[in-house]
Amino acid sequence: MKIDVLTLFPEMFSGVFGSSILKKAAEKKVVQYNVVNFREFADNKHQTVDDYPYGGGAGMVLKPQPIFDAVDSLTKNEENSKPPRVILLCPQGKVLTQKVSEELAKENHLIFVCGHYEGYDERIREHVVTDEISIGDYVLTGGELGAMVVIDSVVRLLPGVLGNEDSPLLDSFSSGLLEHPHYTRPADFRGMRVPDVLLSGNHKHIDEWREKQSLKRTYERRPDLLENYPLTEKHKEWIAEWKKCEKD
Amino acid sequence: MKIDVLTLFPEMFSGVFGSSILKKAAEKKVVQYNVVNFREFADNKHQTVDDYPYGGGAGMVLKPQPIFDAVDSLTKNEENSKPPRVILLCPQGKVLTQKVSEELAKENHLIFVCGHYEGYDERIREHVVTDEISIGDYVLTGGELGAMVVIDSVVRLLPGVLGNEDSPLLDSFSSGLLEHPHYTRPADFRGMRVPDVLLSGNHKHIDEWREKQSLKRTYERRPDLLENYPLTEKHKEWIAEWKKCEKD
Repeated sequence: MKIDVLTLFPEMFSGVFGSSILKKAAEKKVVQYNVVNFREFADNKHQTVDDYPYGGGAGMVLKPQPIFDAVDSLTKNEENSKPPRVILLCPQGKVLTQKVSEELAKENHLIFVCGHYEGYDERIREHVVTDEISIGDYVLTGGELGAMVVIDSVVRLLPGVLGNEDSPLLDSFSSGLLEHPHYTRPADFRGMRVPDVLLSGNHKHIDEWREKQSLKRTYERRPDLLENYPLTEKHKEWIAEWKKCEKD
Repeated sequence: MKIDVLTLFPEMFSGVFGSSILKKAAEKKVVQYNVVNFREFADNKHQTVDDYPYGGGAGMVLKPQPIFDAVDSLTKNEENSKPPRVILLCPQGKVLTQKVSEELAKENHLIFVCGHYEGYDERIREHVVTDEISIGDYVLTGGELGAMVVIDSVVRLLPGVLGNEDSPLLDSFSSGLLEHPHYTRPADFRGMRVPDVLLSGNHKHIDEWREKQSLKRTYERRPDLLENYPLTEKHKEWIAEWKKCEKD
């Protein structure tokens, strides 16, 4: 997979692309990162990339030309076949979910366009960008962190990236429930003890305890996740039990 | 504001803390960042920070001791008053919203605990952590990007951080509606023209156009945001108009 990032702050990416799983993925040649400062594509003497908004108002707007030309240069040698996904990070976008990441993980070429407190000229959204994505309902100073988040969530899904040693204990949003609690040694840390069942060696009991804790945590913290979850009879009994306790 | 980050990958933070608004905030001494590798607090010879889960299963679990001791060392000189918020990034947490960021922006001291594909021993959640936060419903390889996202969304709200020159055109989630489209020069770029109204100089028309576009974009993309929005009579007429068009 080829990943290009258009940004005015290329130095923001070195630490993240150079560490941990994203670094390993590049070393294994599963993915190739290319961070481009689109200021280099500005066709004016002062390398200006933004300008005042038509119609007035505070703030600045990113001009179409540098971004159109930067994307053109990144795609001109593309072996026709599948055009790249050009992703704009912005609060108006579709909210990122695990499903969106899984879908993006099937692509060969992703281009991320990161603005930074400026707005985007609407023609960029209409004619260059294929996807507008938001990572959540909060305001960030730029699209860079959003791009890193999308890239991390996508790259870890590519075949060969996560070895067994890196495998998460459980992917909360893949199973549909939140994770059950985990404990490791010591069994007693400053008087705080690990639940007896986990020390029992009885795997039937351990599995049931984990399933129940997982469901309970989801029920308490994210009941919305249960709306589409295929609850078993046992699950329904547990939930009825917790509901009764709340009333008592 | 004092911001401490506990992580096994301190190098991930340099690019982000060293650029743009987060850098400016530190230069203006509005905020002080301190990235700590909690491996340094491991009290065993091999500086091990994780161990196998009690009860069996794949993956590793972060031991309580290094994190308890790291947090202790960061808080021992605290001038009593208000204890710090200790924030764990994890998919089970409360989902970050602009409101959560606004609330955190009132604190003096935030400590972020970032695990990295390991699980956390439950005693860390129960006895050290005050807040569990998730930045969205997707899986990341570690808590580091989540911590950067929370920090960015909080620090930009601190007084004195955003100058006028940095002010966003409009904060989508502060106004309650998504932004209207923006345009800048040239009025005609490769045949793509700016809407006439923005070139008209008629500010009454421009304001109305922007208000309508803002509402339309929200109606089309994020109707959930309109549920609690105080719609005017004019807004309702516009929406009725769009609904009629959809039917036709």
